[in-house]
This record gives sequence, C-alpha cells and structure tokens, in this order.
Amino acid sequence: MTVGEELYKLVAELYPICRSITGDGVRRTLEVVDHEVGLVVHEVPTGTAVLDWMVPREWNVRDAWVAGPDGRRVIDFRASNLHLLGYSVPVRATMPLAELKRHLFTLPERPDWIPYRTSYYAERWGFCASQRLVDSLPEGDYEVCVDTTLADGHLTYGEHVVPGGSDEEVLVTCHVCHPSLANDNLSGIAVATRLARLLGQGRPRYTHRFLFIPGTIGSITWLARNQDRVGRIRHGLVLACLGDPGPLTYKRSRRGDTEVDRAVAHVLASSGRPHQLQDFTPYGYDERQFCSPGFDLPVGSLTRTPYARYPEYHTSADDLDLVRPEHLQDSLEAAWEVLQVLDGNRRYLNLKPKGEPQLGRRGLYGSIGGRSDAEERQMAMLWVLNLSDGDHSLLDVAGRAGLPFALVAEVAGTLEDAGLLRRTDR
Amino acid sequence: MTVGEELYKLVAELYPICRSITGDGVRRTLEVVDHEVGLVVHEVPTGTAVLDWMVPREWNVRDAWVAGPDGRRVIDFRASNLHLLGYSVPVRATMPLAELKRHLFTLPERPDWIPYRTSYYAERWGFCASQRLVDSLPEGDYEVCVDTTLADGHLTYGEHVVPGGSDEEVLVTCHVCHPSLANDNLSGIAVATRLARLLGQGRPRYTHRFLFIPGTIGSITWLARNQDRVGRIRHGLVLACLGDPGPLTYKRSRRGDTEVDRAVAHVLASSGRPHQLQDFTPYGYDERQFCSPGFDLPVGSLTRTPYARYPEYHTSADDLDLVRPEHLQDSLEAAWEVLQVLDGNRRYLNLKPKGEPQLGRRGLYGSIGGRSDAEERQMAMLWVLNLSDGDHSLLDVAGRAGLPFALVAEVAGTLEDAGLLRRTDR
Amino acid sequence: MTVGEELYKLVAELYPICRSITGDGVRRTLEVVDHEVGLVVHEVPTGTAVLDWMVPREWNVRDAWVAGPDGRRVIDFRASNLHLLGYSVPVRATMPLAELKRHLFTLPERPDWIPYRTSYYAERWGFCASQRLVDSLPEGDYEVCVDTTLADGHLTYGEHVVPGGSDEEVLVTCHVCHPSLANDNLSGIAVATRLARLLGQGRPRYTHRFLFIPGTIGSITWLARNQDRVGRIRHGLVLACLGDPGPLTYKRSRRGDTEVDRAVAHVLASSGRPHQLQDFTPYGYDERQFCSPGFDLPVGSLTRTPYARYPEYHTSADDLDLVRPEHLQDSLEAAWEVLQVLDGNRRYLNLKPKGEPQLGRRGLYGSIGGRSDAEERQMAMLWVLNLSDGDHSLLDVAGRAGLPFALVAEVAGTLEDAGLLRRTDR
Repeated sequence: MTVGEELYKLVAELYPICRSITGDGVRRTLEVVDHEVGLVVHEVPTGTAVLDWMVPREWNVRDAWVAGPDGRRVIDFRASNLHLLGYSVPVRATMPLAELKRHLFTLPERPDWIPYRTSYYAERWGFCASQRLVDSLPEGDYEVCVDTTLADGHLTYGEHVVPGGSDEEVLVTCHVCHPSLANDNLSGIAVATRLARLLGQGRPRYTHRFLFIPGTIGSITWLARNQDRVGRIRHGLVLACLGDPGPLTYKRSRRGDTEVDRAVAHVLASSGRPHQLQDFTPYGYDERQFCSPGFDLPVGSLTRTPYARYPEYHTSADDLDLVRPEHLQDSLEAAWEVLQVLDGNRRYLNLKPKGEPQLGRRGLYGSIGGRSDAEERQMAMLWVLNLSDGDHSLLDVAGRAGLPFALVAEVAGTLEDAGLLRRTDR
Repeated sequence: MTVGEELYKLVAELYPICRSITGDGVRRTLEVVDHEVGLVVHEVPTGTAVLDWMVPREWNVRDAWVAGPDGRRVIDFRASNLHLLGYSVPVRATMPLAELKRHLFTLPERPDWIPYRTSYYAERWGFCASQRLVDSLPEGDYEVCVDTTLADGHLTYGEHVVPGGSDEEVLVTCHVCHPSLANDNLSGIAVATRLARLLGQGRPRYTHRFLFIPGTIGSITWLARNQDRVGRIRHGLVLACLGDPGPLTYKRSRRGDTEVDRAVAHVLASSGRPHQLQDFTPYGYDERQFCSPGFDLPVGSLTRTPYARYPEYHTSADDLDLVRPEHLQDSLEAAWEVLQVLDGNRRYLNLKPKGEPQLGRRGLYGSIGGRSDAEERQMAMLWVLNLSDGDHSLLDVAGRAGLPFALVAEVAGTLEDAGLLRRTDR
Repeated sequence: MTVGEELYKLVAELYPICRSITGDGVRRTLEVVDHEVGLVVHEVPTGTAVLDWMVPREWNVRDAWVAGPDGRRVIDFRASNLHLLGYSVPVRATMPLAELKRHLFTLPERPDWIPYRTSYYAERWGFCASQRLVDSLPEGDYEVCVDTTLADGHLTYGEHVVPGGSDEEVLVTCHVCHPSLANDNLSGIAVATRLARLLGQGRPRYTHRFLFIPGTIGSITWLARNQDRVGRIRHGLVLACLGDPGPLTYKRSRRGDTEVDRAVAHVLASSGRPHQLQDFTPYGYDERQFCSPGFDLPVGSLTRTPYARYPEYHTSADDLDLVRPEHLQDSLEAAWEVLQVLDGNRRYLNLKPKGEPQLGRRGLYGSIGGRSDAEERQMAMLWVLNLSDGDHSLLDVAGRAGLPFALVAEVAGTLEDAGLLRRTDR
C-alpha cells in the first residue's frame, strides 16, 4: 500500500462519522487519530468563556427523519448525516409540505447534491436535501423527527506534541468538525496525522504541536487556554482540502513575509509543481483566528483547491470519490518538505569572510581550473559562504542562489565540518 | 438642468472675460465665483516681495488692434482676447508688414487657431493670430494700437473656507489667470466652486480651503503670505483641465505615496473609470509651487487630459466646444469622492483583537453556516476587524481588501456602534 | 588610428606572452602597461600568507612539447602557449599513447579548438590540444618534455594611481594571468590602461586606483596587503571581456544598489545601447573577492559577453579575431562615462527652496509664456531645483527626471553660478 493509499484509508475510515463542533462524533474521530499517533484529548465544559465567545452546549444526534404522507421516510439522517442541519434542536411534529419547506435547504444549481448547513448559534431545526428530492415531494402532511440532544457537556479537541530540541514551536492544525465531507476536513486530518508520525521518527529542532480541533470555536478555545504558549510559536500551518485534484495553494499569513510564507513559496516553486500563492484574507479556516490582530501569528494555510472554490465544497459531492490517494500523498510530501525546510533553516557565520577561503586546499573545489561549467554543488558552497554574514538564513541563500534548499543545507553542513562556518542560531 | 449643465453654464459665463495674472479680468471672475459660493478677495500691492518673486505691475486692456493698409482692423482684441500677447506694453505706431511680423505669434501646424502667448516679465508687445490670417496680409503699412495700462496696482486672488471639525486643512486650488480658455482654467474654477458649495452643505472633518489664484505668481503669493498656515495642510488637490473628453488623470504629489495619492488612486481604480496615474514632475500647474522642496506639501493634481497634452491646449480651440457637461460632471463626482474618502479615512482599534469577536451574537453575522458565499458586507467587517490594529487606516483596509471605501467606512461605523472598535485619530 | 585601433594594438602586442598567476609573463605584461601609463610593480614572495591563502611558488616555462613515435613534435608550446596545462610541474618521460592521453585535455564538442586549463594548487602536468589532433595520434611511444620551473619566487602585480582631490577612491581592476586569451584578460588590460591615461589628463575628484593583478590570488594578495585602504573605496569596477561583439553587460555589486550600480545602469540605459544588467553571483572575476562578506565593497563588473558565456571562452578561439577595435572603443567609452558620472555625482542644496525661484529674472527661463514645449534644459533646471533637498544626488535627479546625467550636471553648475544651489558634499 502506498502512503497515499494509507492516507486514503484513514479518510475512508473517518468518513461515516457524524462530526460537529461538539459531541461524540468528534470524540470518535479523535479516537481514530489517537490510535494512529497518540493524542491528548481535552474536554472543555459548556459555558467556559473563551476570548469573546463561550463554549456552546454539546450536540448529539440519535436519529432524524422526515416521513411523507404515506408514512415512508423521505429524508433520513441514517442515509447521510448531511441531511440534518447541524445543531438542529429536537422537534417532533406533523406539518403540511409548505411549512416543512421553510425548514429545508437545497442547492437549486446542483439539483442532485445535498448541501451542508449548520445553525450553531441560533436555535433552529432543519433538513438539507437535494433539490430533485424536494421537488418530488407530494402535497400532504409530513412527520418530522429530530431526535437530538443539545445540553451542557463539553467541547472536545486533541493535541499531539512531538518534542524538539527547542521549546520554540511549529503549529500544525486541522479542523475536525464537519460530518461526511472528505476533502474539507478529513484530508487535513489524515495529512496532519501522518506528518506527526513522520516527525516522531526523528528528533526535530522545533517542538511540533498538532491540533485536531473544531473550526472557529475550537481554535478560539485553544488560543484562550494557551495564551502563555502562543509566544513560542515560530511557524504554523493550517491544513485543509488536501485530497482534491487541484493544484497546491498556499495562503500567506497576515504578515505576508514570515519564514513559513517564504518556506512554502520556496518548496512549491523549486518543486516545479503547478501551484498558487495567495495573500491573506480574514476568511477561510482557522488562520482567521491565529492571524487575528491580537495574535498575528506566523501561520499560513496549505490546501489544494482552497476554501469554497470547488463546486463540491460543503455538499454531499465532497465525498470519497473527490479525494484521491495520489493527491493526498502529494500534499503530504509538500507539507513534509515545508516542515523540513523550517526545521533546517539555520543561520551561519562565515568564519573566513575576507575573500574566498581556499576551498581547493580543503578538498572542496575541483583542482583543474579554466573549465566554464561550475557545478551546482560548488556554486552552493560559494553562495553559502558569500551570504553567511549573519543577515541571511539558508532559505535566503537558496532563494537568492536559485538552488534547492536541501543542497544549500547540505553544503552548509560540509562547510561547517570544514571549520568555515559557525551556526549563529540556537 | 443636470449638475454637468450647471457647471457648463458657469464656464460659459466666465469664458468671455479677459483674465491675466493681475487686473480687472481676475476681479470680474472672482465676482462671479463669489456669487456662487462666497469669497474673501485679497488684493496684494505691486512690488510686494513674495518668496523669490515680486508682485508685478497690474495690467489692464482697453483695446488693441492692428489695422491694414486699407485702414480696416485685421486683428482685433474685441473679436478674441487671445489676439493680444498677455502683458503687452502700450504702443501706437505704424510700420511695414515685415516689422509687424516680428511681433506676431502663430501656430503654423494649426493654421486656423490663434495661440495663447504671454510676456509677463519682459516688456514687449505683440499679437497672436492664425497662420492663415497672417499669410493673407498684403504688403503695406500697418497701424498698431495696444491700449493697455501696466501700472502699480494689485494682484488679486480669492479664498473660500469651509470650516471643519478640525483646523487641519484640505487645500483645493485652481488658476484664474487665463483669458478665453475653457478647459484650461475655467473647468477647474467651475468644479472647485461646486465642490465648495457641496462641502458647505455638511460639516466636514477637515477645514477645506479653496484658492482661486493666478498661476505661479498667485500660488507663490499665497504661500508667502500663509507660511504659518502651511503646516496645517494635510491633503491638497490642484484642479485644472476637467472638461475635455480625455480620461481622468492624477499626477501624484512629489512624495508620491501620501494619503491623497492613495485616495485618488483608490477612487479611480474602484470606480472602474479608465484613468491614468502619473508621477510628479516639476512642471504643470501650481503643484510646482506647493511641491517645491521647501514646502513639499501632500498636493497632487487632478485633470482629465493633462497640461499641454491635448492639441487645443493654449489655443483658441480650447473653447466652449471642447468642454462638455458630462465630462465636467464626471470630474466633479470623482473629486467629490476623493474629498469624501479623505474626510472619512479614519483609524480604528479593534477592541476584541484576540480571535474574531462573535459577530453572530451581535446580529452582525448570518446565522446559517456552511454557505460558500461570504457576502461583501461581512467580508468588509472581517477586514476592518483584522486590520484595525493601529497601523491601518480605512483606506488601507479598502485597498488590501479590494472593497469600496464607502462600504468599509460604513461597516466600521457599525462595528464602532457595537463596541468592537474605537477611533484612534482625532 | 582610432582609439579602438590603439586599444586593439595593445591587445595584439600582449597576446603572444605566456602569462600565469606568477612568473615572467606577468612581468613582461606589466612592462608593456608601464610603458603606456606608468606602474608601480609589487613583488610578493612565495609563502606570504594572504588572507586564507598563501602566495604560491613562481612558475616559469622554458619549453614544453610532446614528440610522436617518429620523433616529431606533435604538441608544441612554441606554437601556442595554451598547449601547456598551466602550472605543469617539470617532467621528462616516454610513455605509450594510452598513458599520455591521461594527461591530455580536449574539447570534444569543439574539435578544432585548444582548451585553456590550469592546475595551480595540485601538482600535475598536462597538455591541452584539439580533439582532432588527439584523435589523429597513432599508437606508439611518445616523448614528453615539460621544461618548467616551480620554485620560490614572487607573485607580481601592478598598480597605477591617478590622484584626485579627495583620498576617497575609485578602484578599477583587471586580471593579467591568462596566456594567449585576447578577450578574457587582454581587452580588460587595454581598456583599464586607456582609462588611466584619460583620467591622468585631468584632475578627478576621487583618487582612482588601477590594479593589474592575477585573478583570485592577486586580488586576495592586494586585499590582504591593503586592508587599511579598503575603507576608502567608494566605487569600483572589475573589467574583463570587453572586446567581443556581445552587448555590454553589468553585473551588480553584492549590495546591488550602490552608486556604481546605479551609475552604470544609468549610463547604459541613457545611451540607448543594447545591454544587460545582472545580479551579483559569487562567481566570475575578482568581484568574488571584493564582494566577499568581510569586504562587501561597492564593486561591480563590466563586460561585454560575460564570463563563460561565449563559446570561445577559455579556448584558443578567444584570439585576435574575436576582439574588434570598435567593441573595445565602445567599452572604453561606456566605462569612461561611468567614471565621469561617479566623479560628477554631486549633491546640492536648493538655496531658494520655497516655491520656484524666478529663473526668468536671472535669464534662465524663456520670456514668452504659454508655449507647450518645455525645453529639456529648462526641465533639467526645474528637476535639479526640486530635488536638491539634501537627499538626492545628481544621479538621483537624472534617474527620476529621465534626463541625461551630463545635462543635469551642467545645469546644476549653471544654477550654482546663479547662487541658487550650494554643494553639500565634500
């Protein structure tokens, strides 16, 4: 099984679970992730004040359906958890079609798809269904059952930490609050889980913190409870929508030129992949919270097709057909390379800064002069020596030299071993 | 009558008057403007030292003509005030054609047009005429009459102030020194007059000062007499050539990135109008003086086709046919919008800067989640909240968000009312 | 004889000499330059520590050849000094063809050309020859004679100083270490020699220092011995490859925006010549040393086709046919203009900064107003006045005004004479 297939398997395993911003669906999801990589699961009580918000009541679903005039279920939560408006309050009633329709959500322009809709903060019930189904409903009385609970409980999120040599942190987050949506939600969970496992196989420089959190209220809750830790975050990535066939897309942090912004740009450009770079906007995923002005963290967002830009977004068509193993794997590889660049982006000081040091004497330079083809490795050494003045990181060198980061980092190690460079960062 | 027609009517009323940098033509022009909007008229005596200059003698014209060998007037000031070289000294003489021609100015490449020429600072007399007319003159003796006075008197300019909440000022200027030239000169006067009247209907934040001044010597005189006031000028616009069919053109201030530069760029870009932005040059209209290095004021210049870039410029073809009501109105609307942006360009501080405040609870956010269409107003609120960190003005927000300034300003008010923002400027 | 022909004559005179990084070829070359312009010749002993390097043993060649099975010389240093691998150690031996070939260097893709190769820092002997010749060698025993000396001696370089009004310096360098290569090496020597002679005819503002040095080890040696003088260098140019038909190419200094970078860009752009501007790379000629991070001097490199980018580079085809008098002259003129711009790039302060001074009263402005054609000289005066605020040099003015530097400098002098400007630099 390829890595992509393994990622896809995890997506498929999580797909049927009915997640929301609270409730047992999140818990079951975190159990699956915990089994993969180990999680600390936090439960935050309803009513806890978190920044400008409050942890809402916990929502759980036993069943939900609409039965037609002939008594048969015409809309059934068991067939698709998208059918139920998220956070619907309980109801049991009979009503004519016209009144029922005031509670139905459809996508007229995609008549076969079920939309995904929620009403977290206004008490309401409703069902989502395909336009075609709603159009076929005969007049008559309908029985409605929303068998949910909305009660004091908890908001649940999971955290996984890979300890590094430093207590400075890289934050990787994904949201775990959408029901059966494969690309939006599950692809990010799968890639984040795998990244955590890969990092755990080594000893990174930075401590890496992975958050599996409900969108918006989850990141707000985490931020509220970790305000003392926020200052340690050096770089961060919000992961989502990583399984669709679109090109990789990076949305810059609010600051726009942080190290993670430049690292992702370098990885995407030097890979030759088609890709897009976008400026920050205060909409999308949890970068909205991490990049709010009171935090302004160096956190960008990596997706394939971004938020709301693919037709299947927030519909029943964001399913296990939309997500493909090869795209998940490609996304994982890019994210992994970004983490590697960040972890390896050292600063060095040239210890022989006056003129070039004599590399030939140290066996680092070809002995036959006069050739016109300077090999890439030799150029990388000259660039590292020339720019290692305290002002440039290896990523700066790679960018200015137009050379791959990995080569630049490797020759920096060689030059350090030769006594020509000294690391100046911690 | 449309606003454009009203502007045109004012241009037409002013058109016949023979203006120069001093004299009764300026006074009559200012009387007309005074009737529209109220003016304080200043008279500065000949010989007054103003910066590196001196107020010149006052020039007035009773009559001026050239009569041919048959005694008939071949060039006549009464037919067009452009015929007389501006500031011609008095003369009464008879001379052969060859000698006369040394005093004639023509435009060979536009044989039917009369050029506009002056000799303010060298004592000289002359006539301007069409090439065709000059070519038709027979040999013989010509009688020349320049019945002008050039004597101690005054330089005249007008000022109109709309008081604002602050003594910080917006300066709007136009030149009033050209004879019958409609686009160059009168269009600016008309638009400035109307802007002053519109502002007077409200209570702007800034004090707005309108200057109706002779070009060069007028602005130099005003600057010399108002050096203590210059420090209050926050923004300024020199208005000219606003009635021709060309696209709106903005010439940046010397500094190039002042608030007025950015405000005009935003208004022109967001309006979808074809337009041009040009860098400052030390030539053109009175921005030459306002942007001299000893003042370096944040003053740009708004025109349609700029200075000297249309064939009719400084000729008899810059007449009431060149200027059209719809262009005058379009120019007025753009200038008005610029003044509105400047006046409304506030800075706010987000009072809930950590994470997004819960807009839904305050009725500012749709309660149904999951939709992929974020409405513009909601985006505007998120942008204002995200960038209201003390470093960004509303114009910065509008620019970065790609949203109209008016919408951004409106939602800022809404958010301020909701207690989420506090104004940080005066 | 044109200047270009004179430059070519010097190239031709130097062409036959067998130069290397040390030895009598360098001395003979410096004698020729000394005859043209006067040189101080420095001899630095073998073993002298220079920065991270050491002055190597001195190398001289008496003869070198390979004789074939029939006893006739098949490769002969006397036919081309490129035949001998630079710094070959002495050898006298007989060997079969296969063994000989391990010491032969060819250019398979250019079968008629002899490559230029060296082995300065690894003890080795070898011959360079055309691929065609090597292919034609019959099997059999070959006699090899490398009659060289590699012994303690000196590294030799020449210096010529044109004293200026200031002890701040402009550095002009070229390399003198290549044998019969006309474009790479000799063209730079010829242009530098002529520049020195031209400068000596006047009294420049800056002291100009010309270095005729072996590449790499020569500049390292000069830098090591002149560390106290390096701080005086305000601008510098490395000259090479100035006789080929390619467009002039300027490689920026490491800092990228120094005055010499802007001066060369201005000269090349305003001349209308086709040309290229390239960013610094830590490869090429002695800018590698001058721009090492411990010195980081404002030194760029002027060439026609740059280093290693023409097929004849470092081959026997870089000969007296590749270099043409007209290209040498064009390069000289560009370099001369750059030195003139640097020397004349003054800063002035406008003494009448408030408003425009009245130029007409001083006879500096046309007396007939109203014309739409502002002449270039008048615009130059307005630009100089407007930007002479202490922050802008004349080169800044020329760049922002889009006017030739020479015109800007000339009107600055006129305005200074009129008492309107005062020089603010030394």
